[in-house]
Amino acid sequence: MAAINGNQYIDRIDRLKATVWIDGDLVTGKISEHPAFKGVMKSQGKLYDFQLEDRIKQKMTYLSPLTGKPVGMSYLQPKTIDDLVNRRTMIQDWAKLNNGMMGRSPDYMNTVIMAFASSVGLLAGKANCYPEHITNFYEYARENDLSITHTFIDPQVNRAHYHFENAEEPIAAKIVERNAEGIVINGAKVLATQGGITDEILVLSAAGFGGKDQGFSFSIPSNSKGLKFICRDSFVGGESAFDHPLSSRFEEMDTIVVFDHVLVPWDRVFYFDNREISNTFMNSSSFSAFTMHQVVARRIVKTEFILGIVQSIIETINIGAYQHVQEKATEIIVALETMKALLFKAEMEAQVDEWGYMRPDQLTLQIACNLFPKIYPRFTEIIQLLGASGLMTTPTENAFRSGIRKDLDRYLQGASKNAEDRTKLFRLAWDMCMSSFGTRETLYERFFFGDPIRIASQLYSSYDSTPYVKRVESILSSTDRLADD
Amino acid sequence: MAAINGNQYIDRIDRLKATVWIDGDLVTGKISEHPAFKGVMKSQGKLYDFQLEDRIKQKMTYLSPLTGKPVGMSYLQPKTIDDLVNRRTMIQDWAKLNNGMMGRSPDYMNTVIMAFASSVGLLAGKANCYPEHITNFYEYARENDLSITHTFIDPQVNRAHYHFENAEEPIAAKIVERNAEGIVINGAKVLATQGGITDEILVLSAAGFGGKDQGFSFSIPSNSKGLKFICRDSFVGGESAFDHPLSSRFEEMDTIVVFDHVLVPWDRVFYFDNREISNTFMNSSSFSAFTMHQVVARRIVKTEFILGIVQSIIETINIGAYQHVQEKATEIIVALETMKALLFKAEMEAQVDEWGYMRPDQLTLQIACNLFPKIYPRFTEIIQLLGASGLMTTPTENAFRSGIRKDLDRYLQGASKNAEDRTKLFRLAWDMCMSSFGTRETLYERFFFGDPIRIASQLYSSYDSTPYVKRVESILSSTDRLADD
Amino acid sequence: MAAINGNQYIDRIDRLKATVWIDGDLVTGKISEHPAFKGVMKSQGKLYDFQLEDRIKQKMTYLSPLTGKPVGMSYLQPKTIDDLVNRRTMIQDWAKLNNGMMGRSPDYMNTVIMAFASSVGLLAGKANCYPEHITNFYEYARENDLSITHTFIDPQVNRAHYHFENAEEPIAAKIVERNAEGIVINGAKVLATQGGITDEILVLSAAGFGGKDQGFSFSIPSNSKGLKFICRDSFVGGESAFDHPLSSRFEEMDTIVVFDHVLVPWDRVFYFDNREISNTFMNSSSFSAFTMHQVVARRIVKTEFILGIVQSIIETINIGAYQHVQEKATEIIVALETMKALLFKAEMEAQVDEWGYMRPDQLTLQIACNLFPKIYPRFTEIIQLLGASGLMTTPTENAFRSGIRKDLDRYLQGASKNAEDRTKLFRLAWDMCMSSFGTRETLYERFFFGDPIRIASQLYSSYDSTPYVKRVESILSSTDRLADD
Amino acid sequence: MAAINGNQYIDRIDRLKATVWIDGDLVTGKISEHPAFKGVMKSQGKLYDFQLEDRIKQKMTYLSPLTGKPVGMSYLQPKTIDDLVNRRTMIQDWAKLNNGMMGRSPDYMNTVIMAFASSVGLLAGKANCYPEHITNFYEYARENDLSITHTFIDPQVNRAHYHFENAEEPIAAKIVERNAEGIVINGAKVLATQGGITDEILVLSAAGFGGKDQGFSFSIPSNSKGLKFICRDSFVGGESAFDHPLSSRFEEMDTIVVFDHVLVPWDRVFYFDNREISNTFMNSSSFSAFTMHQVVARRIVKTEFILGIVQSIIETINIGAYQHVQEKATEIIVALETMKALLFKAEMEAQVDEWGYMRPDQLTLQIACNLFPKIYPRFTEIIQLLGASGLMTTPTENAFRSGIRKDLDRYLQGASKNAEDRTKLFRLAWDMCMSSFGTRETLYERFFFGDPIRIASQLYSSYDSTPYVKRVESILSSTDRLADD
Repeated sequence: MAAINGNQYIDRIDRLKATVWIDGDLVTGKISEHPAFKGVMKSQGKLYDFQLEDRIKQKMTYLSPLTGKPVGMSYLQPKTIDDLVNRRTMIQDWAKLNNGMMGRSPDYMNTVIMAFASSVGLLAGKANCYPEHITNFYEYARENDLSITHTFIDPQVNRAHYHFENAEEPIAAKIVERNAEGIVINGAKVLATQGGITDEILVLSAAGFGGKDQGFSFSIPSNSKGLKFICRDSFVGGESAFDHPLSSRFEEMDTIVVFDHVLVPWDRVFYFDNREISNTFMNSSSFSAFTMHQVVARRIVKTEFILGIVQSIIETINIGAYQHVQEKATEIIVALETMKALLFKAEMEAQVDEWGYMRPDQLTLQIACNLFPKIYPRFTEIIQLLGASGLMTTPTENAFRSGIRKDLDRYLQGASKNAEDRTKLFRLAWDMCMSSFGTRETLYERFFFGDPIRIASQLYSSYDSTPYVKRVESILSSTDRLADD
Repeated sequence: MAAINGNQYIDRIDRLKATVWIDGDLVTGKISEHPAFKGVMKSQGKLYDFQLEDRIKQKMTYLSPLTGKPVGMSYLQPKTIDDLVNRRTMIQDWAKLNNGMMGRSPDYMNTVIMAFASSVGLLAGKANCYPEHITNFYEYARENDLSITHTFIDPQVNRAHYHFENAEEPIAAKIVERNAEGIVINGAKVLATQGGITDEILVLSAAGFGGKDQGFSFSIPSNSKGLKFICRDSFVGGESAFDHPLSSRFEEMDTIVVFDHVLVPWDRVFYFDNREISNTFMNSSSFSAFTMHQVVARRIVKTEFILGIVQSIIETINIGAYQHVQEKATEIIVALETMKALLFKAEMEAQVDEWGYMRPDQLTLQIACNLFPKIYPRFTEIIQLLGASGLMTTPTENAFRSGIRKDLDRYLQGASKNAEDRTKLFRLAWDMCMSSFGTRETLYERFFFGDPIRIASQLYSSYDSTPYVKRVESILSSTDRLADD
Repeated sequence: MAAINGNQYIDRIDRLKATVWIDGDLVTGKISEHPAFKGVMKSQGKLYDFQLEDRIKQKMTYLSPLTGKPVGMSYLQPKTIDDLVNRRTMIQDWAKLNNGMMGRSPDYMNTVIMAFASSVGLLAGKANCYPEHITNFYEYARENDLSITHTFIDPQVNRAHYHFENAEEPIAAKIVERNAEGIVINGAKVLATQGGITDEILVLSAAGFGGKDQGFSFSIPSNSKGLKFICRDSFVGGESAFDHPLSSRFEEMDTIVVFDHVLVPWDRVFYFDNREISNTFMNSSSFSAFTMHQVVARRIVKTEFILGIVQSIIETINIGAYQHVQEKATEIIVALETMKALLFKAEMEAQVDEWGYMRPDQLTLQIACNLFPKIYPRFTEIIQLLGASGLMTTPTENAFRSGIRKDLDRYLQGASKNAEDRTKLFRLAWDMCMSSFGTRETLYERFFFGDPIRIASQLYSSYDSTPYVKRVESILSSTDRLADD
Repeated sequence: MAAINGNQYIDRIDRLKATVWIDGDLVTGKISEHPAFKGVMKSQGKLYDFQLEDRIKQKMTYLSPLTGKPVGMSYLQPKTIDDLVNRRTMIQDWAKLNNGMMGRSPDYMNTVIMAFASSVGLLAGKANCYPEHITNFYEYARENDLSITHTFIDPQVNRAHYHFENAEEPIAAKIVERNAEGIVINGAKVLATQGGITDEILVLSAAGFGGKDQGFSFSIPSNSKGLKFICRDSFVGGESAFDHPLSSRFEEMDTIVVFDHVLVPWDRVFYFDNREISNTFMNSSSFSAFTMHQVVARRIVKTEFILGIVQSIIETINIGAYQHVQEKATEIIVALETMKALLFKAEMEAQVDEWGYMRPDQLTLQIACNLFPKIYPRFTEIIQLLGASGLMTTPTENAFRSGIRKDLDRYLQGASKNAEDRTKLFRLAWDMCMSSFGTRETLYERFFFGDPIRIASQLYSSYDSTPYVKRVESILSSTDRLADD
C-alpha cells in the first residue's frame, strides 16, 4: 500500500464497524452514510483524493524509504529546513480545502506519530519501554496511510488540586492487568475528536500524579474489543451546504472513549507501568514542536478565511469607510501576519535535534500557541459586531426555492451582492461563529493545547529571562554618576 | 375581556392564521403546534397563566380604570414610584419564569404601547397625527391583553453614510397610497421578533433621512392582508428539555416583515407623512425611559441566572479554590450588582413628566444599556473558560435512556453531582452560550438598542458635562500661588 | 476645643516636630514651610478653614454631644439615612475643594476612628481589649479635631505564600515588651500617607499569620519617642500652580514608619496580644462599610474632575465630532454614573447595625471598590490618547512670562482657548496622569483596598449566589417536556 | 572627517549655540553643561565613543565609498540582506547601551537621511525638486557624522476634519518668500525631539490639505538665523543615577520649532512649492520601511529591558509562584518574541527596490508598528501591578548615605536583594513607568508613527485581502451538496 484515496479511507472505516454510540443508538450500518459523519468523512476523503491528483501529488507525498512508493508528506521525518517547508506547504494545501476548519485532518495525527518515531531514542533502555514498537507502528501507519485519533485527558470529575480518585471505582483509564498477550485497560478518557471514524486510536497518559498503572502509551484499532466511542450530539445543522456551509462538511465529532477491559497486545504497547516516562515523553520528545508546527500552519489558513469573511461582509453592506470597521478588520490583519511571522521564524530557526531531525523552534511556536486562543474568540466577536442583524436575516435554501423568493430577492440584496449570495455569505459567517458548530470551533481553539492559564505558566517556566535580568543588573550597578565625571 | 390565560393567547393566535413562511413553507395548521413555535408559545402561555394565579394575581394585574376588571400590570401608566416598583416587580416575576431568556415577553410591548399612550400630548395639533388613535389602541390592547410585536428598522442593504435608495425599486417600507380607507404600505422592515405569533404588529419609522412617505406609525393585526412574516431557520434544537433546556422553550424567532400593499385603516394610523414627528417621537416620548426600565429589569434576572450557572459549574467540578476562577465569577457579581444599582437609582430618582406620569431616570438607564452589551458577551466567555471540555462531554437524553447509561453514570459524574445532573447542567450552560439559540441571545443583547457605537454617541451627546468643565475652569483660573500667599 | 481652622492645624503640626526624614535630611524647621509639605498642608488647612465658613458651617459640622460645640461632620456616628447623606455631602464638599485628589483628607481618618468607636461592642469582655480606650480616643479626636494617619501593612520583603520572618531580626513591627507603662513596639510598617503631618498615627495589625506579638492596635502622637517617618522623594514638581497645578497643592507623601522601641502608654492601647481580634476586627466592625462610603464618595468627585478635563481637551482642540472620541468620553460617563448609582444604593439600603448605627450596604460598596481600581487607569489612558502631542507641547509659566511669549501665544492657541489657558489645561491633564504625582495617584487608586486580585476573592467568598444556583436547579429538575404534556 | 567620538559631538553642539529656550530662559553657556541636556548629551556621546572602540568598530562602521574612511553603519544604503542585518545589529548594539530608552539616538535620523538619499529617483524631473541636494546632504551628513532631528507636524490647534487656518495669521510653517538666495519660512512645527542638541534639523511637510506654500522639505543647521527651539520643562529628575537611573541619562527633550522668517539657502532645499510630492514622498519612498526597521529593532531592546525589570521584581519579592504573576510576565514574553519574529521576517523577506536598495518588508513592519503602541502601555501597567507598594517605598540615594541607613537596610531588604539594591531596582522600575520621564516614554511609543487609529486605517487600506475574499467566494459558489452527490 501507499498514500490512499478517499474511497479507500471510507471503505476501510466502514468495514471497521467500531462501536460508536450516538444519541442513545449504536451506529450499525455504514458509518460513512450516517448523517452525523457523512459530511466530515466525505471532506476527509477529498483530502486523500487530493494528495493523489497528478498536478499536486509531488507536493503532497514523498517516496517511502521502505518501498519507494508515494506516502503522505505529513509522515516525513524532516532533516532539513526544506523538509519542514515541504511539510508545511502540504499541510496548508490540505487546510485550504477546508479553510482550516478541520482541526483533525489526518496530517495532525500523522505528525504526532512521526514525532513519536523521531524521539524513540528517549525510550531506549528504559524500563517497560518498547521504542521498536513505535518505529514499527509509524512505518505501518505511513505505508498504509492510516487515519488515527488520540486521547489522553482523564474525565473532568473534580479539578481541584490534589484530587485523587477513589480507588474502588476507577474512572480514569488504567492498566488493570498485565498478561501474556498484553496489558488490559479499564476506565475512560476524554475527548477523542473523530473518534470512531479513524483506523486507529493512540492512547497515552497526560502528565500528572497518578500511579504506574496510569503510565502508558499504545495504539489500537478503533474496533478493538471493549472499546466504545460515546458521542455528544451532532452539530451537523443539516445537509444543505447553502444553509450549513461548514457544519455539513466539517463537523468532526468529539467522543468519550470507554475502555471496557480492552486488551492491548504487546506489539502495540509503546511503554507501560512507567510514570516517569509518561510524565515527560510528550514534553521532552519532538511531539510539541512538530504538532505546534502543524497546528499553527492550519490556524493561519483559518485566520485567512476569517479575514476573507470579514472583508466580504464589509463589501457586501458597504461599511468599509467607517473608522471603527477598519480598526476591527485591522485587528485580524495584525493577528494573521503575526502568526505568519512566528511560523516563518520557527522554520527558519529550526535546528537539528539530537536524533538528527530538523525540529522547528519550539519557543517561537509556543508564542503562537499562547496567542491564538486569546485572539480567535475576538475574531468571532468582530464578525458579530460587523454582521449585526444581517446574521439573523437569513432565510434558508428552501426559502429561496419557494414562492417567497421574489420578496427575498428584493429585500435581502446587498450593496455588492444579490440576495441569494448575500444570504449565503451571512449564513457562512453565522456558521463560523454562531452555530453550534462554530462555537465548538471557538472552544476547540481556546483549549487545543490545554487551559490557557496553564500554557502561560509553562511558557513562563521554560523561558530564559536571565540575559535581560543581567542587563538590569548592569544598569543598577553602573557607577557612572553625572555629577562627578 | 381582561387579563387572559395561556389558552386564550394560544387560541387567538392559532385563529389568526397570519402568513408565516419558514424554510420555504407557509405555516398552514395551528402555529402553536409547529415545532418552531410550540415551545415559545407554550412558555408565553405560561406567563399568561401565571398572571391569573390566585396567590400572585394581585401583583401581576391591576384594575382597569375603564372596566374595573384585572388587566396586566405592564399596561399600568405609572404615577408614583410605587407604581414603577410594582411594574418592575411584575416584570421580574415574569422574567424569573424564563430566567430572562424571553427578550420579548408580552410585558415589553405592553410597556411600549403604554409609553406611546402616555406621550400622546406630543402629537396634539400636529399635522397628520392622531393621538386619539393611540389612546384608543392602548385601551383596546390593555382590555384584551393583546400580544404585540414591532418593527422599525429598514433592510440592511447598504449601510454607508448618505446612502439613498433607488426610488424605482423601493425596499424600505413606504406609504405608496393614501385613500379614503387608509394608507397603503409597500416594502419591508426587519426584524420582528415573535413576528407571526402575536395579535398585532406595531410599525414605525426609525429616525433617518427618508422622505415623508417614511414618516409613519400604526398598528395592524398580524393577519392583515398582504402582510407576510418570513422566518430565519428555527433555533429550536429539539423537543427534549434535557438536551435543549433553553431553545426548546424560549426560541422567539426573528422575521422579515413584508408589506405587499397592505392597507392600514385610518383608525389605526397614529401618524403619517410627518417625518419630523417620526424622527423625534421615540426619543422625546417616554418610550426610551419605559422600555429601558423593562429591559434592564429583565436583564438583571438573566444575569442572576448566568451567575447561577457559573456557580453551579464551579461547584460541580470543584474549582472554586482557584484564584482565576474566583476572579471570573466576581466579574459577573460586579456586573449584576451594578445593574441592580442602576435600576434602583433610576426608580428612586424617577420624576413626574409633563403629562403626569412617573418616568424613571432616563440617563441612569442609558448607562445600564451602554454597559450591558459589553459585558454580556464576557459572561458567555467565562462560561466557556470554566466549563472547558465539559461543554463537549455532553451525551443526550436518549443516551442516558440507552444501554450505555452505566458507562455514562460512571465516567461523567461530577464532584457534587451525578452524571445525569452534571450533563444536564453542562447542556444548559452550552445552550446558554454555545448553541445557535445561545449565540442569537448574545447578538440580541449586543444590539437590543442598536449599534453599541451609536448608543455611546447618543449618550455622549445628551450628557451634560458642563458642571465638571466648570470645575476644571475654576482650578485653572485659581490665582493662588503657593509662593506668594 | 472644637472644629478647628487651617492655622490651628498648621500650628499644631509645626509644634509637634515629629521625626521626619526626607532625602537623607531630618526636617528641622517648621514642616509647614518645607517644600515637600507646604502645599499639601496649605490645602489641608483650607479644608479646615472651609468647615468654619459661616455659609457652610452647618453642613460641615454638627454639635458635639459632649460640649454642644461644632465638631467635624465626618466624626458623626450616623443613626439615620439622613445622617449618612449628611456625612457624604460634607465629604464631597471637602473633596470638591481638591477635586478628590487628596486621598487622605482628614475626613478619611475621622471616619476610621468613628467606625472603631461605633464597633467597640466587639471588644467587650475580650482578652487584652480596651474598648473604652477607643471610645475615649474617639471623643478626644473629635473634640480636638485631630488629624490622623494610619499604618497596618508589614514591609514587602517576601510575598511568597507562607513566608515567615526570621525571628532573630524582626522586620514587621511587633510588641517586644509589656511593662507597667504600656507596650513597647519595635520594627516597621509601610506606608503611612501624610505620615509626619498629622497629629496622631493609628497603628494596627493587618490580618495574617503572625504571632500574638503582632496582634495589636493603638494610636500615638506623631512625635512619640522612637517614632520615625521616612519619606520617599517628594513628587511636588514645583511651587507654580501654573506648572504643577496638582502636585504643588495635593502631594500627600508616603512614609515608612519605624518604631524604634516606641512606648505606647496603656490608655492608648486598644487591644494587644490578641491575634484573633486583630485578624477579624477590621472586617467584622463597621470599618469597611464606613471607609468605603467615604472613599467612594471622594472617588466620584475625582471622576467628575477627570470627565471635566477630558471634555475640556475635546473642546479645546475641537475633536468632539470623532466617533472614537465620543466613545472614550462615554466610557468615563458610564463609569461615573455607575459609581454614583452604587453609592446611592449603598446609602438608601443602609441598615442599622447591632450597635444602633446606620451602616451603608457593604456589598454594594464592595462592588464599587472592585470596579474603580480597574477603570481609573483607563481614565488616564484616555487622557493620553486624546491629549496626544498636546501633553508634551507645554512650556512653563516662566516661558509665558518671558520674551518668547509672543511665539507661544501664536503657536499654542487652541480652538476654544488662548495659548496660556490651553497650556494650563494640558499641564493639568499631564499632572493628573503623567507627572510623578499623577502616576502615584494611579497606583494609589489601584491598591487603596489592597491587591485587586485579593479583593475580588474576598467579594467572591462573601457573596451569596445560592438563590441563583437554586434557580438553575429548578430549571434542571423541571419535568416539563414539550413533547408529552 | 568620518565617524566621530563623543567629545567631537559635544564640542560641535556646544559651538553651535542654537537658540534654545527653556523655562523662560535662553540657554547661553555650553548647552552640554545645562542640567536639562547634560545627561542625554553625555549618553549620546557614549554612543559615538562606542562606535570607535577597537573591538567593535568593524560592526559599527563601514568604509565610506567616497573617502574609504569609517562612517557610521546606520548611514549604509543596504543592497543585500546581510547589509540589513548589519544595520540592525549596529542599531541594537547602540540601543543596548541605553536599553532602547533613546528613541532618537542618531541612528534614527541617519536612517531617515539614508532613506531619502535612496529614494531620490522619485524626485527626478519633478517640478521644484532637487534630488541632487538630497544626495549631497546625505554624503555631507555621513562623512561628518552629523546629528540631526526632524519636525513635520503642524501645531495642534484644531483637529476637526476640514479645519483650515486663518490665512491672516499663519500658524503652521509656510514658505512666505522665494528669492535669489533661497526660500523663507515663517510659522511653527511641533515637536522636534532633541531639538537644539543636534547639528541639523530636517524639516518637511506632513501629508495634508495645505497649499503649495506648505509643500517643502529641507535641512538647515540648528543655529540658523530666526530658528528657535522652545522646550517643555525638563523631565530630568535629578543628577543621581541611583534616584533617577533613566531620566538622568536619557531625557531627550521635545521642542516646539519656531521659524521666524528663516532663510533656507537653495542648496539645502530638497523640494518646495510641490504639494503633490510633499503629500506622497514619505509613503512612496523607502522612508517608512527603513525607519520602521530601525524603530522596531530598538523597541525589541526596550522590551527586553522591561522583561528584565519585571523578572527582577518577581525574584526580589519572590512572587514567581503566583499564577497571575506568571501570566503577566508571559504577556511580555509573548510580546517580545512576537516583535522579534516580525523583525526577522521583515529582514528575511526584504526585496530589492527599483533603485537597487534592499528594502525590508514594509507590511510586516507595519504589523509590528500597529502592535507596539497597544502593548507598551500594558507593560508599564504590569510593572505597577507587580511592584505595588514597593514602587512608593523608595528612599533616595541621600537617604542611604544618611544616619537613617541602618533602618533602611533592615526594613527595605528583599527576598533576593539587600535594601540598597532593592531600592535601586524599584526606583528604576518607577523611572520606567511612573516618573514624568517614564510616562513621556509611554506617550512617545503610543504616538511614534501617529495616532493609532490612523495607522490602523492605513494598514487596512494598503492590505490586500483579495485572495481570502476569493477563498470565501469559492466556498460560497461550491455546488457540492452532500445530499445529491
